[in-house]
Amino acid sequence: MNVNDSVTKQKFDNLYCCRESILDGLKRTTDMMFGGKQVVVCGYGEVGKGCCAALKAMGSIVYVTEIDPICALQACMDGFRLVKLNEVIRQVDIVITCTGNKNVVTREHLDRMKNSCIVCNMGHSNTEIDVASLRTPELTWERVRSQVDHVIWPDGKRIVLLAEGRLLNLSCSTVPTFVLSITATTQALALIELYNAPEGRYKQDVYLLPKKMDEYVASLHLPTFDAHLTELTDEQAKYLGLNKNGPFKPNYYRCRSLQRRVPSAASPRGGRGDWVGTAVSE
Amino acid sequence: MNVNDSVTKQKFDNLYCCRESILDGLKRTTDMMFGGKQVVVCGYGEVGKGCCAALKAMGSIVYVTEIDPICALQACMDGFRLVKLNEVIRQVDIVITCTGNKNVVTREHLDRMKNSCIVCNMGHSNTEIDVASLRTPELTWERVRSQVDHVIWPDGKRIVLLAEGRLLNLSCSTVPTFVLSITATTQALALIELYNAPEGRYKQDVYLLPKKMDEYVASLHLPTFDAHLTELTDEQAKYLGLNKNGPFKPNYYRCRSLQRRVPSAASPRGGRGDWVGTAVSE
Amino acid sequence: MNVNDSVTKQKFDNLYCCRESILDGLKRTTDMMFGGKQVVVCGYGEVGKGCCAALKAMGSIVYVTEIDPICALQACMDGFRLVKLNEVIRQVDIVITCTGNKNVVTREHLDRMKNSCIVCNMGHSNTEIDVASLRTPELTWERVRSQVDHVIWPDGKRIVLLAEGRLLNLSCSTVPTFVLSITATTQALALIELYNAPEGRYKQDVYLLPKKMDEYVASLHLPTFDAHLTELTDEQAKYLGLNKNGPFKPNYYRCRSLQRRVPSAASPRGGRGDWVGTAVSE
Amino acid sequence: MNVNDSVTKQKFDNLYCCRESILDGLKRTTDMMFGGKQVVVCGYGEVGKGCCAALKAMGSIVYVTEIDPICALQACMDGFRLVKLNEVIRQVDIVITCTGNKNVVTREHLDRMKNSCIVCNMGHSNTEIDVASLRTPELTWERVRSQVDHVIWPDGKRIVLLAEGRLLNLSCSTVPTFVLSITATTQALALIELYNAPEGRYKQDVYLLPKKMDEYVASLHLPTFDAHLTELTDEQAKYLGLNKNGPFKPNYYRCRSLQRRVPSAASPRGGRGDWVGTAVSE
Repeated sequence: MNVNDSVTKQKFDNLYCCRESILDGLKRTTDMMFGGKQVVVCGYGEVGKGCCAALKAMGSIVYVTEIDPICALQACMDGFRLVKLNEVIRQVDIVITCTGNKNVVTREHLDRMKNSCIVCNMGHSNTEIDVASLRTPELTWERVRSQVDHVIWPDGKRIVLLAEGRLLNLSCSTVPTFVLSITATTQALALIELYNAPEGRYKQDVYLLPKKMDEYVASLHLPTFDAHLTELTDEQAKYLGLNKNGPFKPNYYRCRSLQRRVPSAASPRGGRGDWVGTAVSE
Repeated sequence: MNVNDSVTKQKFDNLYCCRESILDGLKRTTDMMFGGKQVVVCGYGEVGKGCCAALKAMGSIVYVTEIDPICALQACMDGFRLVKLNEVIRQVDIVITCTGNKNVVTREHLDRMKNSCIVCNMGHSNTEIDVASLRTPELTWERVRSQVDHVIWPDGKRIVLLAEGRLLNLSCSTVPTFVLSITATTQALALIELYNAPEGRYKQDVYLLPKKMDEYVASLHLPTFDAHLTELTDEQAKYLGLNKNGPFKPNYYRCRSLQRRVPSAASPRGGRGDWVGTAVSE
Repeated sequence: MNVNDSVTKQKFDNLYCCRESILDGLKRTTDMMFGGKQVVVCGYGEVGKGCCAALKAMGSIVYVTEIDPICALQACMDGFRLVKLNEVIRQVDIVITCTGNKNVVTREHLDRMKNSCIVCNMGHSNTEIDVASLRTPELTWERVRSQVDHVIWPDGKRIVLLAEGRLLNLSCSTVPTFVLSITATTQALALIELYNAPEGRYKQDVYLLPKKMDEYVASLHLPTFDAHLTELTDEQAKYLGLNKNGPFKPNYYRCRSLQRRVPSAASPRGGRGDWVGTAVSE
Repeated sequence: MNVNDSVTKQKFDNLYCCRESILDGLKRTTDMMFGGKQVVVCGYGEVGKGCCAALKAMGSIVYVTEIDPICALQACMDGFRLVKLNEVIRQVDIVITCTGNKNVVTREHLDRMKNSCIVCNMGHSNTEIDVASLRTPELTWERVRSQVDHVIWPDGKRIVLLAEGRLLNLSCSTVPTFVLSITATTQALALIELYNAPEGRYKQDVYLLPKKMDEYVASLHLPTFDAHLTELTDEQAKYLGLNKNGPFKPNYYRCRSLQRRVPSAASPRGGRGDWVGTAVSE
């Protein structure tokens, strides 16, 4: 069962956690000041959105690169200039990758960065920055502290490479216990569901966590915030065609809200049985 | 074809448009000042998120009510106190509904509001506020200007009801041409697709707009912002298992980013042909 | 007595009021969407700070021009690119002046703006935009609605000029009653003070409102927000050397930017020689 | 010469620096997550404003306490509930002092805090939290890591006290080199001015840094941000009555809150009678 793509876990692992860990990771490694710094964030998915929001709030000037026009338009509407990396690479103070892609930052980009530019990766692997291309004889590496390398060009220019291009949030920041709790709860519930499921509910395939369990994970964490959930009245539940205990969103729902909830024959949130997973690959 | 649930249209109609029209609608009707005002927003879907973000930015203190624990947790993480309406109804200056539900604001709530509280609806119909319950002999209605009624209690208390409980953003604000352009483009492309589709692609059912067309709508609007999209290299497209021209997200994707894009056998974004719609009700 | 420069009135007239009226004025005149728009704000005093904060929050990309290095550094730290007007004039969608200066936007700037660029003034007079320079035979003026003119170049380019260069917030927006209350209270208290003052307290000169009265105006408006002020204990008042009832700040305290720079006989910034220190305790 | 009260140094030491160091200090000591946490900030001067803005941006729910009605009204307009400490002490997750006052957090407050509440000081001395009151036999102190103590009540409740009530930003965070540069430049220029000043310019007194030097410090740091200052034309300088090279603001201009309220012989807020106006032109 693919617990990674449950809404609650995704939002916490990516958006909410990265919003904080990008600041934390940069501070612990470089003690830099964010105010007034020019930053380019490659990729405007959940991780990119978190990084951009945090840095904008701290007074950085943030540029975004994207390949997907929908995410690109979101970046525009959120107030970020959408650029190609080449357009800003000479002027930025920080480069952050969050794409899940490879070779997003190439040697050519690294060659053109200005002195003391900081380069780090918040994406999913160590491929986003072409670190291998920096292992050449003309460049000198200097380890200035744990997880921080200065890569020095023949003309004296230094690039500050964090965590050797591996994940900054895992290498140079800490994971709050709250996020661990979300993750562990999600995994535990998935195992319980698989164990208890009647034969035939799950075939040999990859499934998304049923929406109702996803909602249950969230509800278990609300008391931490002294948050009070509203309950549907019988009349409202009937009007919306929902069970009073959820699930409140269709299984295919991922982080948005389907404002227009008027039920209809063709509605995607029909009378599914509860806790039945949808195969991701169907 | 259900164009309403395309990502681009949804985001613009709901999140981005409402972020602006909630302010515009309130200003044009009441000339109120937002700074320091206490506001409760019922519902934290896209519309609610837009309203909350705008009012928070203008210095209002915003409370949120929700029935869905996942949206509720998002409200917490975004810095809003999650309450039941009863807890704050006596103290708030403004009540805004964005639920798609009915009777969210009842006569009992209206009775308990403080003098000059403003009540309005940003949701999807005129059912969210129980306006009918205000048509009783002991209450006096006074039309103070177009779309603005004072409902006066026997003790002199006045509630400011906007647009008689109908949609504030449609009644008291304007729709920017940019949003109309997004909508019209989406609808036109859907019609073209239906007209051109080979026989058998669409059965008698409700379909979501194919992801690639959704992305196309977005890409057509990027030049307005002088936004420059990055293109995948051949190597990157192969690594991600994507066509260089998109679609970049699976059809089931709705507004989030699937950061972890490592392709696998079970990946939801396999080698689908292009522009093939997915039936919502499948 | 110069009530204009009291802290409370200044903050409300400039920062807090303009934060809202810039959005209101633009919406009512142009129905434009703020998200993704590129805006240049000339001047980063209180008015400029309010405009920048509001537009940034609505998803605009904001550039700032300044002549004063201290205000300029503040703009940087708040996340705005500090530019000269010439650098961005070709690309911006909106130009807003808040300088108190004259001819900040010249005919040359207007000639270089792109089609449908919006030009407006939030500063203190109608001199900031050189509107007179647009009254030439080759340009056509078209009144499209109240307070909105299209100025049309021979090649068809149109500039959208609001309020003929006069104050946008006065001409195209409304002033909330709360702001009027602050202003009226300040003026009334100043008159009472002048009337009651023992002979000799005030000579024929321009005086700032005493800090304690400024604080009194503020305290009278706190109950609107259900705001609860903390009182000093005797021990704390003694420790701070303050009277428990204020004033809590010295008379010279002004947390503002002196937008109104027009010199006058009574101006506080007379012809001092340069680099002459002011004794703190004078 | 009192370099502490120069605008540039004040803004950096207090507002901009604390905006970042409050997050940094809390992360390094507690690894907590900010999203959804309830925080009370005591004091809404520059330091308090910085702390509040940062935590609000990270998704915390922030309450403010103040004694000064002007600062209190600013907190309201910035979207923070103004409360007395007693009103929220049972529910908050974090208590931060930034008052310059003493015994703002008393043993009584500490007794009423909930389990695992974090208490820290961003003000100017170690007097703000009554730490001495916690050195009693019934409470157990447990040092959990450097700068972090758990104070344990007989019923098992733990309070997390940071830096034993001393300054969090000095003890548990780092000072960016940029801030040091601002400070050092200001001090160096003050010394140069004192050395070069013609006899008689300075008597034996405490002086504020001349505005022009303050502006010079700022202008020296603009190139770091690739910021381009606009120069006045001759015509504009004449219109404003300013020298083209500054100073652009009068000497009495201070956009800050005088956090450090401890009175001293040289204090600018000596024993003035109340409600005595200050001549603007003196």
